[in-house]
Amino acid sequence: MQIGMIGLGRMGLNMARRLARGGHQVVAHNRTPQKALDFAVREGGLAAGSLDELAALLRPPRVVWLMLPAEAVDQAIAGLAAVLEPGDLVVEGGNSHYKLDGPRAALLAARGVDYLDAGVSGGVWGLEEGYCLMVGGSAEGFARLTPALESLAPAGGYLRVGPVGSGHFVKMIHNGVEYGMMQAYAEGFELMKAGPFAAECDFRAICELWQRGSVVRSWLLELLGRAFAADPRLEEVGGWVDDSGEGRWTVELAVETATNAPVLTLALMNRFRSRQSEAFGDKVLAALREQFGGHAVKRPGQG
Amino acid sequence: MQIGMIGLGRMGLNMARRLARGGHQVVAHNRTPQKALDFAVREGGLAAGSLDELAALLRPPRVVWLMLPAEAVDQAIAGLAAVLEPGDLVVEGGNSHYKLDGPRAALLAARGVDYLDAGVSGGVWGLEEGYCLMVGGSAEGFARLTPALESLAPAGGYLRVGPVGSGHFVKMIHNGVEYGMMQAYAEGFELMKAGPFAAECDFRAICELWQRGSVVRSWLLELLGRAFAADPRLEEVGGWVDDSGEGRWTVELAVETATNAPVLTLALMNRFRSRQSEAFGDKVLAALREQFGGHAVKRPGQG
Amino acid sequence: MQIGMIGLGRMGLNMARRLARGGHQVVAHNRTPQKALDFAVREGGLAAGSLDELAALLRPPRVVWLMLPAEAVDQAIAGLAAVLEPGDLVVEGGNSHYKLDGPRAALLAARGVDYLDAGVSGGVWGLEEGYCLMVGGSAEGFARLTPALESLAPAGGYLRVGPVGSGHFVKMIHNGVEYGMMQAYAEGFELMKAGPFAAECDFRAICELWQRGSVVRSWLLELLGRAFAADPRLEEVGGWVDDSGEGRWTVELAVETATNAPVLTLALMNRFRSRQSEAFGDKVLAALREQFGGHAVKRPGQG
Amino acid sequence: MQIGMIGLGRMGLNMARRLARGGHQVVAHNRTPQKALDFAVREGGLAAGSLDELAALLRPPRVVWLMLPAEAVDQAIAGLAAVLEPGDLVVEGGNSHYKLDGPRAALLAARGVDYLDAGVSGGVWGLEEGYCLMVGGSAEGFARLTPALESLAPAGGYLRVGPVGSGHFVKMIHNGVEYGMMQAYAEGFELMKAGPFAAECDFRAICELWQRGSVVRSWLLELLGRAFAADPRLEEVGGWVDDSGEGRWTVELAVETATNAPVLTLALMNRFRSRQSEAFGDKVLAALREQFGGHAVKRPGQG
Repeated sequence: MQIGMIGLGRMGLNMARRLARGGHQVVAHNRTPQKALDFAVREGGLAAGSLDELAALLRPPRVVWLMLPAEAVDQAIAGLAAVLEPGDLVVEGGNSHYKLDGPRAALLAARGVDYLDAGVSGGVWGLEEGYCLMVGGSAEGFARLTPALESLAPAGGYLRVGPVGSGHFVKMIHNGVEYGMMQAYAEGFELMKAGPFAAECDFRAICELWQRGSVVRSWLLELLGRAFAADPRLEEVGGWVDDSGEGRWTVELAVETATNAPVLTLALMNRFRSRQSEAFGDKVLAALREQFGGHAVKRPGQG
Repeated sequence: MQIGMIGLGRMGLNMARRLARGGHQVVAHNRTPQKALDFAVREGGLAAGSLDELAALLRPPRVVWLMLPAEAVDQAIAGLAAVLEPGDLVVEGGNSHYKLDGPRAALLAARGVDYLDAGVSGGVWGLEEGYCLMVGGSAEGFARLTPALESLAPAGGYLRVGPVGSGHFVKMIHNGVEYGMMQAYAEGFELMKAGPFAAECDFRAICELWQRGSVVRSWLLELLGRAFAADPRLEEVGGWVDDSGEGRWTVELAVETATNAPVLTLALMNRFRSRQSEAFGDKVLAALREQFGGHAVKRPGQG
Repeated sequence: MQIGMIGLGRMGLNMARRLARGGHQVVAHNRTPQKALDFAVREGGLAAGSLDELAALLRPPRVVWLMLPAEAVDQAIAGLAAVLEPGDLVVEGGNSHYKLDGPRAALLAARGVDYLDAGVSGGVWGLEEGYCLMVGGSAEGFARLTPALESLAPAGGYLRVGPVGSGHFVKMIHNGVEYGMMQAYAEGFELMKAGPFAAECDFRAICELWQRGSVVRSWLLELLGRAFAADPRLEEVGGWVDDSGEGRWTVELAVETATNAPVLTLALMNRFRSRQSEAFGDKVLAALREQFGGHAVKRPGQG
Repeated sequence: MQIGMIGLGRMGLNMARRLARGGHQVVAHNRTPQKALDFAVREGGLAAGSLDELAALLRPPRVVWLMLPAEAVDQAIAGLAAVLEPGDLVVEGGNSHYKLDGPRAALLAARGVDYLDAGVSGGVWGLEEGYCLMVGGSAEGFARLTPALESLAPAGGYLRVGPVGSGHFVKMIHNGVEYGMMQAYAEGFELMKAGPFAAECDFRAICELWQRGSVVRSWLLELLGRAFAADPRLEEVGGWVDDSGEGRWTVELAVETATNAPVLTLALMNRFRSRQSEAFGDKVLAALREQFGGHAVKRPGQG
């Protein structure tokens, strides 16, 4: 099929490639036009310098996939609303909050344009292994998109999970679970390093061992084995951990729905803590201990 | 090779079967003798009615694998110390605390008997898919055991991880990680059920979707998909969750080594909570709210 | 001074009483007019049947204090904007989110009306012991309100903590801390009940003991002693614990500002859990354990 | 009454002083004899250079109070067992684990010597304000000790809470609660500092405000106000927080009794984290994110 791809960042570019290699004609548009031109040259697609041009290059009814930073999506949708026509379809594949999908779908529906939200998992491995795609929206839109989904995903790796918003919702939960799983492994290996066999334990070998028949085998563990293979004690890795939004939204959902979710929450908060060299709360504790117990505090910078 | 297997419970019986099917001669001993006889008849091994008989049926240097409930291990080792001879080898494969391995190894070493501790993961799937085996102890003992390990494990699924105790230690960490991962999935699906798309989300389909290309794919998720296939909303499953010891030891290790391990710890404590219909601490909270805020408490049994 | 009081619920009525007893003339308005009439008769204030009447009964420049359920505040402020005059002052004392204070202040500022937000702590004890008042807004407004604050608070129990919104903000943090402290006591007594001296420990006596010279002495502990005095093992108290909003906002602030706040967060989530007889997540765990370990699940309703 | 005091560290010396000032004759013994001599000279007690001398200076039936580091207690008790006589009484007032009290009591009972365990709270303020004393052991021993307890504690600040071990047990729970409360305040002020009114909030003033009529008023909050008075933003305080054992034992009790105690546990683990500049677990997370998402890791030492 023919498909427009807006946003050629790390994710978008690889997805466009995978679509092109799957036999689809990709019309690419990017804020920095050179990236779209490069893609067109290398992968045999088309480059559109503007949304107008994108619309002109796509035959109606059009399908346009957005793969943009979260903050750029609304402007792109407004722009598309102006150039698309009734019967066209927009797929928002970025890291959007699921509550934004309804209003966006409504805006486009007023123009007769359909809207799907697609949560995309797979990271840098997606180009080769395929992406896992969680799609929300109309069954009709999903059916139209299916040839592209077939190319993007490994066998069975795409699904319409529900109405508009549900794709991003399921992707959000997915990432919350991911945070919790990652933290479980992280604590396990920190304990292994803190325990009595720290010197003997070969972390890479243990990752590879656990991949074979154990209850904790997973793709994350396979990747962790790769990381330890490259740097057995992670001496070249700083313990500074970013978070990308979905983990926060998951915790907010827990609060909003009065759901107990301690592990997903603390996995997130642990990342917050990783980015502090010192916590003000810990100063409060040290100051209190000095007050009631006469316990000497350490001065900042003291070893 | 020839190997004695003491303890034909769920794990031990399947391991004995897998060994027998792998071409080894298994001499089985069980507290209830009939189980050993049944095994011998069905799988073509030998049954020993006592430890003496077990020792007599095995050619020196002997290898004896223990697969007993934790509380029965010390008595079995004392019994083996009396019937085994220098050069023999005992493998403790049960859920023992790693700190018990050192004293046990010393007790047997005084008789010239070698000792390995083996952490075994794989559950009821091990018979078919093989077990993941984490072994601690001497390189010599490990080498002698290797033919059996080859049969028990899938390709690559066994490793000497360090000296005596390290096998059970690594298995303990493994189970701690398992608790954390399980809790991560559990919270994810509880949130999915609490969220706005609860009615539309097909949990089984989402498990299967996530198995294909997503970051959270794992064996546990595959099993969860099976569980949802059998009972889409788990209506026939009670929310009462046992724990088997290793999770507790992991938290104790965290405390002992002053290691922050919030996710593994809360995964365990959540299981404790699952077994209470009502927490006394929550009564304390309700009573306090009544005291300072005049908030009415619910009486026990009140809806 | 003369002051209008809108909302004669549990908090508002007691505050109006305390103001009246402090020598202020209170003009009371309530959705159910009878409550205002009762107050006027018993405490010697005035009752206003409408906002118009309230404005007419107060001499300009007027001071009107709102003590309404959170969802009724905006309508009341809109109503007041229509009847108040430049130079008047509105105090919002309810459990409002601090982010709402800015827009409300702006709405009233457009009419020349000043706005203070006041966080009020003290519960049912405030009538006798005085309220702790955390006030945000202009220094001028605060100065005008001071005579009323003097009567409402015990000595030193009121403060202008910052600009508009800061009163509710500091009150929100206060409640977050309150959740954490309550949970700390709750867990302590649950552990006491779970431990080896459960039968001998007299919880009331321990509360009273700890009030005398120990590090954990506090007003909450005094109240807990009262609760145990009335019901030594809380047998008449159900373990169902509500939450009133500020705890959730505190966790949302932690997420928004990327701050690690495990104790305040889990104190809140524990309340969520207290309101579930069974958690879906725990069913997921039990189902998983059955899948990989063959551990029998309990059926719902099974003891 | 006459009382022997062994151990003149920070706690023991102040307790000996308070006893002496209360009219008791204190016979002091300390590993470094000069401290005992200084005490005798300044406070009018007696100094004993050895346990023999201590026994000789006390009239039977003797009362000896131990206030030693945890690791020195067993040796002292063994020494006392050799010099004391039937009818004497030993009080162990240090930070001992409650499970050690039974064996110690049994050892002394074999010599006809009674044993009480006393948990002592109050820190450096105890000298002036009195200590809170939680006592376990026989009613007879407690009655004999009462004159000393009267002097040590403020009015009502001592209690026999149960049999041998219960004093240290209740003190352990007390400290667990203390950790949770401290962490609640710590998180509250960290959030205040992270929030939109950080610049305006005067932490000392807020502590003092909350002490007057609010739900969170407590002695710890009073002390925190003092800390902020001395250093408004704790710039001279390092965020390094020690723990003294009881918090760990509380968590171990939770694990042992299968009790959910998330807040006390995380308050402890947060202290562990405060003592790490970087967590290995966080390196694991960063390494994983690089593996699946291509997210650049920070190198150690990188800003």
